[in-house]
Amino acid sequence: MAETGAAQANIGVVGLAVMGSNLARNLASRAGNTVAVYNRSPERTRLLTGEHPEANFVASETIEEFAASLQKPRTAIIMVQAGTGTDAVISQLTALFEPGDIIVDGGNADFQDTIRREKAVRATGVNFVGAGISGGEEGALKGPSIMPGGSAEAYETLGPILESIAAVVDGVPCVTHVGTDGAGHFVKMIHNGIEYADMQLIAEAYDLLRKVGGHSPAAIADVFTDWNDGDLESYLIEITAEVLRQVDAKTGLPFVDIVLDEAGSKGTGVWTVQNALDLGVPVGGIAEAVFARAVSSHPEQRVPLRAALVARPEIAVVGHTFQDDVRQALYASKVVAYAQGFDAIIAGAEKYGWKIDKGAIATIWRGGCIIRAQFLNRIVDAYANDPSIPTLLVDPYFAKAVADGESAWRRVVSTAALSGIPVPGFASALSYFDSLASERLPAALVQGQRDFFGAHTYKRVDRPGTFHTLWSGDRTEVETEGSSH
Amino acid sequence: MAETGAAQANIGVVGLAVMGSNLARNLASRAGNTVAVYNRSPERTRLLTGEHPEANFVASETIEEFAASLQKPRTAIIMVQAGTGTDAVISQLTALFEPGDIIVDGGNADFQDTIRREKAVRATGVNFVGAGISGGEEGALKGPSIMPGGSAEAYETLGPILESIAAVVDGVPCVTHVGTDGAGHFVKMIHNGIEYADMQLIAEAYDLLRKVGGHSPAAIADVFTDWNDGDLESYLIEITAEVLRQVDAKTGLPFVDIVLDEAGSKGTGVWTVQNALDLGVPVGGIAEAVFARAVSSHPEQRVPLRAALVARPEIAVVGHTFQDDVRQALYASKVVAYAQGFDAIIAGAEKYGWKIDKGAIATIWRGGCIIRAQFLNRIVDAYANDPSIPTLLVDPYFAKAVADGESAWRRVVSTAALSGIPVPGFASALSYFDSLASERLPAALVQGQRDFFGAHTYKRVDRPGTFHTLWSGDRTEVETEGSSH
Repeated sequence: MAETGAAQANIGVVGLAVMGSNLARNLASRAGNTVAVYNRSPERTRLLTGEHPEANFVASETIEEFAASLQKPRTAIIMVQAGTGTDAVISQLTALFEPGDIIVDGGNADFQDTIRREKAVRATGVNFVGAGISGGEEGALKGPSIMPGGSAEAYETLGPILESIAAVVDGVPCVTHVGTDGAGHFVKMIHNGIEYADMQLIAEAYDLLRKVGGHSPAAIADVFTDWNDGDLESYLIEITAEVLRQVDAKTGLPFVDIVLDEAGSKGTGVWTVQNALDLGVPVGGIAEAVFARAVSSHPEQRVPLRAALVARPEIAVVGHTFQDDVRQALYASKVVAYAQGFDAIIAGAEKYGWKIDKGAIATIWRGGCIIRAQFLNRIVDAYANDPSIPTLLVDPYFAKAVADGESAWRRVVSTAALSGIPVPGFASALSYFDSLASERLPAALVQGQRDFFGAHTYKRVDRPGTFHTLWSGDRTEVETEGSSH
Repeated sequence: MAETGAAQANIGVVGLAVMGSNLARNLASRAGNTVAVYNRSPERTRLLTGEHPEANFVASETIEEFAASLQKPRTAIIMVQAGTGTDAVISQLTALFEPGDIIVDGGNADFQDTIRREKAVRATGVNFVGAGISGGEEGALKGPSIMPGGSAEAYETLGPILESIAAVVDGVPCVTHVGTDGAGHFVKMIHNGIEYADMQLIAEAYDLLRKVGGHSPAAIADVFTDWNDGDLESYLIEITAEVLRQVDAKTGLPFVDIVLDEAGSKGTGVWTVQNALDLGVPVGGIAEAVFARAVSSHPEQRVPLRAALVARPEIAVVGHTFQDDVRQALYASKVVAYAQGFDAIIAGAEKYGWKIDKGAIATIWRGGCIIRAQFLNRIVDAYANDPSIPTLLVDPYFAKAVADGESAWRRVVSTAALSGIPVPGFASALSYFDSLASERLPAALVQGQRDFFGAHTYKRVDRPGTFHTLWSGDRTEVETEGSSH
């Protein structure tokens, strides 16, 4: 442990639970960094510095000492539980810091809180950066994907430090200045929403291979390992194979069979859907993934419903292409989920005034984070090719990928429906695609119903203007000044 | 118009746009009511009183005069645009009213605002009642379904007045004291969410009959009229037939074909899904309906995607039972949507401390509101039979209804998937049912993934406790004190 007293650290970490400790160790392991550390209860600080003398941490027992140990402009990353704890530390640091110093919130904050905090801290002259950090404990230690918001000025100092600790793919660090104030936490939220969708789709693929394909978890592990060599290559596919290959030591059964099938969640999936709803962006893939976890966690409904069932449908007989059909259905559904996620980023950027480089986001998600995958290079390419592409689904590569897999995708959703296998993610993605692909949607009927019962008016296909039919009168049409929305 | 001056009205209405005017006329038409009216711009008041001398309104040009024209306890229903306008009127009335008087907000308020307002107004001694009013302009005039929250004390005075103007089914007025503070607006919100789902399901049924069945709008109108004699009997089915039968006078084409297929929305569907997400209640049927409208409203995505398509799938060949299959799929999906909606009511009641009588809610939705239907009697019966039933899907009637239609439902979703017809509502409902019906869900794999990348822990099927596998270590299992959520 280095001596305290003089301002010798170029970066500090407040909050030394696992994520904070690992991030501090990551920082300390990179050339050029001297890392100040502080935790409210000093025991934890001593534990960290005792276990990791190699890190040469500058440890403080008070936050004043911590602030004094930082070189100017002082830069401190807060890694405490999101919520009121964050506000308390921010207010302590803001009181001690000077204009030009930088406070970074590296927790999983709600981006609306980050917008609020950035505004309040900026008023004091101190910079505030909300930075999404993805990759879990291991990512924090070895190289996460980092999504910082805040001012461009703050990023000048902070950027090189974050670049030193981020994951690196093809020589490019997985960090970029996402945009002002809450942009970083917003994009991190969408990342997590996409992660929900991706995991749900993989779970559906597994379920189909198991229940319809009749394969064992170990055999399905091999399938996923095989898939990991192709378009689906990704961290989540890789660890799925690991999980499916695992055998429970206590029972000798496949690990996946001894795990209770009630999936938990921590909120960012919910936030993503709630915000997408505010933005008017359909994110069915993410919503169905969030709901699938919720359904699983209601045994008080599942058990009595199963008891009330007279029979379950027979599993449909499938051909030898089924396994590859599932792969293609998974890939097409995944493309849809990512397209929806990027739509939400675009809509958020527009609403909150952020200039977000979509290609840069896809670039920094290629490493360090949970959804890391080669696949993201295709998204980088799509936005490089046409930065204003209206949906990733019309990018030539993705359009072809979906078209190639389309028949398989349809067969899989059909088979699942007939066999009683829940595929909320696959089915929602397919219906989304078919909605966009339909020449005419029954939304016209919905508008007719709305005009009938609520005089909500409608537009016509053959002339401009807004119209209402006098449904309770003579049913003639009148032009109105109303809006159909 | 009656003379102003003396306190002679037993009820008043503030805000005389169409809904407010119609509600005031409704009130005035019932024996025993003398109705005070006030609008910020007096022109509108004069218009109403001039057009409806028979109503004998007590009109005021100032809000002070309006308050003075009311008998004590003063009771006033605010019918202004939800939002800041409502707050302004509430604060004016609160200043003029006395303890025991009653302010009713009959607008489409967010129930969280209603909770806040009720608390603030109650602190002055004045009662505040947030009342959801459903049925649109015609309902307001002829008999709406009314969902008042607020205190039991306020309902003693208000109840008989609302009962006098509500729709009546089987001799029972469509109004009940839903619960305290925001309960009424919460239940109204869920009503609207269910309405979204119901409309979307009907739209999908129409789309299938049109594109797969090959029927004309007029022929499908006859199908809906026919369906309206069975289990599906409802206002929405009835008006769907009317809309589909309508012929556009300008072109001679079916009305539904000249309406632009971009559906609008006004927010309560979004609110329902956002709140259900907060409550952990899966409401896929409502979410997919909201998203379906959103997708339809993005022509900037739909047009280029259609242009990029190489081919659309061939429409599957269906047998002579297809039309009845669609009917059964619609009914089963509708049962799911209502089950989800009532789950949200139950969860909301628990979270916000309301004692909500589910059977009473189903009862007051039988008339006046948009989702009015005989079907709601089945829900009344289900909760009468077992008030703590864990989901409507296990009620014997609904379980049998779904079981009877299950094969048809599966065929329809399968056919839609193969034929490229979007059925987000049907498919989501089926996957929800299949999720509840599955002995094992792949949520176990999701928990395994979460434990792998984030040490989120898991529970086992064979013993209590919370566990974590040392995935990056020797892969043994350790018992933890963590939570899997």
